[in-house]
Amino acid sequence: MTSDELAQLRGMLAAAPVDFSIPALEVRAMFDGMIATFPVDESYSFVEKTIGGVSGLWLDAPRKSSSVLLYIHGGAMLVGNTFGFRGLSGNLAQASGVNMFSIDYRLAPEHKFPAALDDCHAAYEGLLADGYKAENIVVAGDSAGGNLALSLLLKIKATGKPQPAGAVLLSPWADLTHSGATMKSKGDVDNSLSHKGLQSGADQYLGGASASDPLASPLFGDYSGVAPMLIEVGSEEILLADSTRLAAVAGEAKVDVTLHVWPEMPHDWSLFSFMLSEGRDMIAEVGTWVSARVAK
Amino acid sequence: MTSDELAQLRGMLAAAPVDFSIPALEVRAMFDGMIATFPVDESYSFVEKTIGGVSGLWLDAPRKSSSVLLYIHGGAMLVGNTFGFRGLSGNLAQASGVNMFSIDYRLAPEHKFPAALDDCHAAYEGLLADGYKAENIVVAGDSAGGNLALSLLLKIKATGKPQPAGAVLLSPWADLTHSGATMKSKGDVDNSLSHKGLQSGADQYLGGASASDPLASPLFGDYSGVAPMLIEVGSEEILLADSTRLAAVAGEAKVDVTLHVWPEMPHDWSLFSFMLSEGRDMIAEVGTWVSARVAK
Repeated sequence: MTSDELAQLRGMLAAAPVDFSIPALEVRAMFDGMIATFPVDESYSFVEKTIGGVSGLWLDAPRKSSSVLLYIHGGAMLVGNTFGFRGLSGNLAQASGVNMFSIDYRLAPEHKFPAALDDCHAAYEGLLADGYKAENIVVAGDSAGGNLALSLLLKIKATGKPQPAGAVLLSPWADLTHSGATMKSKGDVDNSLSHKGLQSGADQYLGGASASDPLASPLFGDYSGVAPMLIEVGSEEILLADSTRLAAVAGEAKVDVTLHVWPEMPHDWSLFSFMLSEGRDMIAEVGTWVSARVAK
Repeated sequence: MTSDELAQLRGMLAAAPVDFSIPALEVRAMFDGMIATFPVDESYSFVEKTIGGVSGLWLDAPRKSSSVLLYIHGGAMLVGNTFGFRGLSGNLAQASGVNMFSIDYRLAPEHKFPAALDDCHAAYEGLLADGYKAENIVVAGDSAGGNLALSLLLKIKATGKPQPAGAVLLSPWADLTHSGATMKSKGDVDNSLSHKGLQSGADQYLGGASASDPLASPLFGDYSGVAPMLIEVGSEEILLADSTRLAAVAGEAKVDVTLHVWPEMPHDWSLFSFMLSEGRDMIAEVGTWVSARVAK
């Protein structure tokens, strides 16, 4: 049905591959430049805000809402910003009927693990301090942002504070040791990410810390008592096994887990929803899931 | 929220454990006697039908529909019948807004592999011969019926006939070699099934055939090109890893797979929807998934 759209996206990804193994400043210029051009719904009015000491973009819900999506963008821990991801974060929040706060967490290599996670946690605590109830907060992230969202659940658990109402993980990068079987089996079909590029991101983020630390590779965390999860992943991703293993691990720990594997989809395809109907379909599915879990 | 309901169900399961390792005629009398007492919506009018040479129960859709759910009941390949499962099959079909045909396939030990699968396939072919389009058929099954529904997809693929619109797998028993990690890790909390009981069912069904045959253990099948799947499983099941591994295998083969792991739920909990709200919630979720995939 959408084979033309998909072929166009695959062509675009193949023509301008993002190589995370080149110097971060270069890949940042290239990647951030690309996503800054992505069309965004003109009705969205983003405002700059600082919550919990973390700066980011805020978007009000379509109708007044007491709930909020805390959004954590992707980019291999090295690149990306709330401006370039405002289309994706805005679409997810509007489909969910909730407010949205997307954060500019500190990036590697300038800031190493756990600086980014500390920023995510500070923003979550800031939302609580501002009066948002944990039960009306959903955390969400794509790719590296999915890693941080999962690590945030584990960090919140460690502090004894209440879990959010849910977590939405889009093509999450959950294992920085890269031990998943699809790291190899999907290597030829994934034209967004490479093992080499991810390794570069992981090395620059970790700065010598262990990739086996559950707060760095949340796949290895203990999920008992954490929030319900929605995991969305494409079949053509080297990170596919991060999602399938996460569903197994979290499910065994009695987490309410929904995993949806989308055939033929590349990494993080909802970032391209302006040109791909499956991106819009996935965003609608996220909206249904989130809005069923929080107050209006 | 439903802890009282769940405690009541767990108590019931623990008080009358179904031991599939005793002679089949005895466990059949016990199991079939138990499920025959389960309350069923009195508005459902089942009729006996034979389609493709396979007898079973038919239920018309609430409103006229050109689609049908082919239902395959569970019972370790040894027990169960369409009468005892008419509540579950009827609820699933009515929630989906489609007609339903639930089949009395041949049981082991009297009839060995692949007799049951042959009956499922004959019923599918019979529905096609009766004018139902493959794109308007959804196959569904619980437990051993989930095994047969998956094997049916593989068998349909082998014949080159069109796949159905989807497959709904409720706590499927996908691996008769019992190699899943939860076979042991959930052994203490699963008070519906035991490794020993399943081994007895598998031995009597296989009658010497290899448990590694993908038509006997469909976890080991090649899923490329098969129908979209919805997998529903509880966190407290020794069969949990059958579902999580199935999602990984089918997803890697580019199947549209949705897996939902329900915390605290025991094996096949929607069979007990008359006493458990999560059973009704799961049936509603199945209905939404099926009705989005077939014509009215």
